[in-house]
Amino acid sequence: MTTTPWATGLQLRSLVTADARLELSLQSVETPTPGEDEVVVQVQASPINPSDLGLLLGPADIGTARTSQNANGPVVTFDIPERLMRMVAARVDESMPVGNEGAGVVVATGSSPQAQALLGKTVAVLGGAMYGQYRTLPVASCMALPDGTAPAEGASCFVNPLTALSFPEVMRREGFSALIHTAAASNLGQMLQKICLKDGIGLVNIVRNAEQEKILRDIGATHVVNSSSPTFMDDLTQAIVETGAYLAFDAIGGGRLAGQILTAMEIAANKTAKVYSRYGSTQAKQVYIYGGLDTGPTELNRAFGMMWGLGGWLLTPFLVKIGPVEGQKLRDRVVAELKTTFASHYTRELSLADVLNPEIIAAYNRKATGEKFLINPGLG
Amino acid sequence: MTTTPWATGLQLRSLVTADARLELSLQSVETPTPGEDEVVVQVQASPINPSDLGLLLGPADIGTARTSQNANGPVVTFDIPERLMRMVAARVDESMPVGNEGAGVVVATGSSPQAQALLGKTVAVLGGAMYGQYRTLPVASCMALPDGTAPAEGASCFVNPLTALSFPEVMRREGFSALIHTAAASNLGQMLQKICLKDGIGLVNIVRNAEQEKILRDIGATHVVNSSSPTFMDDLTQAIVETGAYLAFDAIGGGRLAGQILTAMEIAANKTAKVYSRYGSTQAKQVYIYGGLDTGPTELNRAFGMMWGLGGWLLTPFLVKIGPVEGQKLRDRVVAELKTTFASHYTRELSLADVLNPEIIAAYNRKATGEKFLINPGLG
Repeated sequence: MTTTPWATGLQLRSLVTADARLELSLQSVETPTPGEDEVVVQVQASPINPSDLGLLLGPADIGTARTSQNANGPVVTFDIPERLMRMVAARVDESMPVGNEGAGVVVATGSSPQAQALLGKTVAVLGGAMYGQYRTLPVASCMALPDGTAPAEGASCFVNPLTALSFPEVMRREGFSALIHTAAASNLGQMLQKICLKDGIGLVNIVRNAEQEKILRDIGATHVVNSSSPTFMDDLTQAIVETGAYLAFDAIGGGRLAGQILTAMEIAANKTAKVYSRYGSTQAKQVYIYGGLDTGPTELNRAFGMMWGLGGWLLTPFLVKIGPVEGQKLRDRVVAELKTTFASHYTRELSLADVLNPEIIAAYNRKATGEKFLINPGLG
Repeated sequence: MTTTPWATGLQLRSLVTADARLELSLQSVETPTPGEDEVVVQVQASPINPSDLGLLLGPADIGTARTSQNANGPVVTFDIPERLMRMVAARVDESMPVGNEGAGVVVATGSSPQAQALLGKTVAVLGGAMYGQYRTLPVASCMALPDGTAPAEGASCFVNPLTALSFPEVMRREGFSALIHTAAASNLGQMLQKICLKDGIGLVNIVRNAEQEKILRDIGATHVVNSSSPTFMDDLTQAIVETGAYLAFDAIGGGRLAGQILTAMEIAANKTAKVYSRYGSTQAKQVYIYGGLDTGPTELNRAFGMMWGLGGWLLTPFLVKIGPVEGQKLRDRVVAELKTTFASHYTRELSLADVLNPEIIAAYNRKATGEKFLINPGLG
């Protein structure tokens, strides 16, 4: 067997130790030789999504970062508050690779025609362990991108696009007819606005400042309400009356916003109700929390009757629920509209070593609207 | 037309005025002459359920009660805090009858054989406006009780029994296999415990003190956990591990309890999980809030992954959802077990005038476990 350039590569690892520390490091790992129906992808672009941070940083106290070195480069270690250790009890002492999705070029394949057909192609992957230089994967996990697509353009093919496309699917399946979205100027939020414009779906965007409002107005948004405005509740209620949006997807999670949305829905429903109902409106009202930009407690004043629901929402169980045929339709649409509806914008490209830099960690952990980080493991 | 004893009767009314007051009074109202398929019920027993208090007292500040008189007896008036007026905007200036359910004797009927067959019978009714001396109703709204059933025994045939019977139905329909119940020593909670014992369903009862625990142990409860105990979270988690109860019905609503239940469910699920999941356990976890014994805000720390739901739950929409055939099965079971499983215990019988007495209002508004009030409109 001859030595191949992809035989080993650096991989980012996150490790929680029993003495309440979280350590990020680079490990040199052997790349598994591809089986018959497998390929080796040289990863060139993998985004840092909020959904990656749970595994990457967990409940670590970012302020306690201290750095050291191992043979492969920097190591950064954090303390984990003792009371939060039970959240990560199941992963103690297990060195975990990170990175939900990414894109790269197929540099080796197994013997099957399907695998060989991918050699040299740019593919997008939702496979986990993407914060590394090489990744051996089944052909079925790879989505070949059209010729002329750069890995950076295909890095975010799955998490944000499929999440954004899923919201209208949930809406239809649960009998709603319009949507509310929070943190709406995010990459995901912009995708959702473009989808809703294209598909004729009413969308109420909730943002926190005028800059975010402008981002959405500039791509054609009609309903944008600012939660920092003194007229927020009235504006939101009016937008719900105009759109009939009784289903919300909330990326914030903590604080009073989810409850405010349910309250505004209730007021809007009662504005159109004909008779008084002692238990509140009969309009079904649902908020799904799909992110945790605010990790603080969620507070509900429950001034919204009894016909309401609040719940967690995750992409993967939803895709399992709708099945592979419906899921493939969503994926096909992502590829077809990759450079338009689903174009992602990155503000900074990072090497694997950069991801372990405390200053940069503080930046990507901020999850600020308009800031989006892309890892290129090829940079080392 | 000859004068009949039932031609007019006293009826309790709740009125919200535009100047932010709520007034309870007795009105003398004409009893509608029964149509072909209708009967007139002389109401002799109607419970004060927590679910009646929303309409009866609404957001009134009970401490502001002052009394006066009208031609029919006492009148009691309360202030409504201005900020809560929007909750009752839809009922301003509409004098509303109160009382979801009750029982009485049929004293007049329409011409149909079905109506005439009920003459002299004791019937239970879920019809609204039961806090009054007479009530004209369709035959279809009346459930004839077996001979020898006193109206007081049949007064609570619907709200508590059907709610308690619905919880296992929801459990089965949503794929859960055991239940958690809060405020579990209530009349409703005791019914639920009896149902679960009879039907072999695991039930975790949450109570607030040792007396309530004893009430449930005395009727055969296995799992009773006390939320005032320092070991509450551990006890609850252990009971969930033992029963597999991932569906809870919560009568409290406010405070941290609903979130604590979801947290204990998550810990219990992770105790049996084989692999670490970055988004928390894959076990579906649901809490339905069906009451508001604590009207304060609900606080969720969301330390329970992403597979969770919290929502309002109401009996009527659930009965609509399962349809008349399934609903009738539940009703038949209530009648069959009226003196056993579904026996209600009342601590005090009230006249209509008593219901307007500020001291008695303070007592029934306390919604204390073990205290249950029955109105007998025949007492005036």
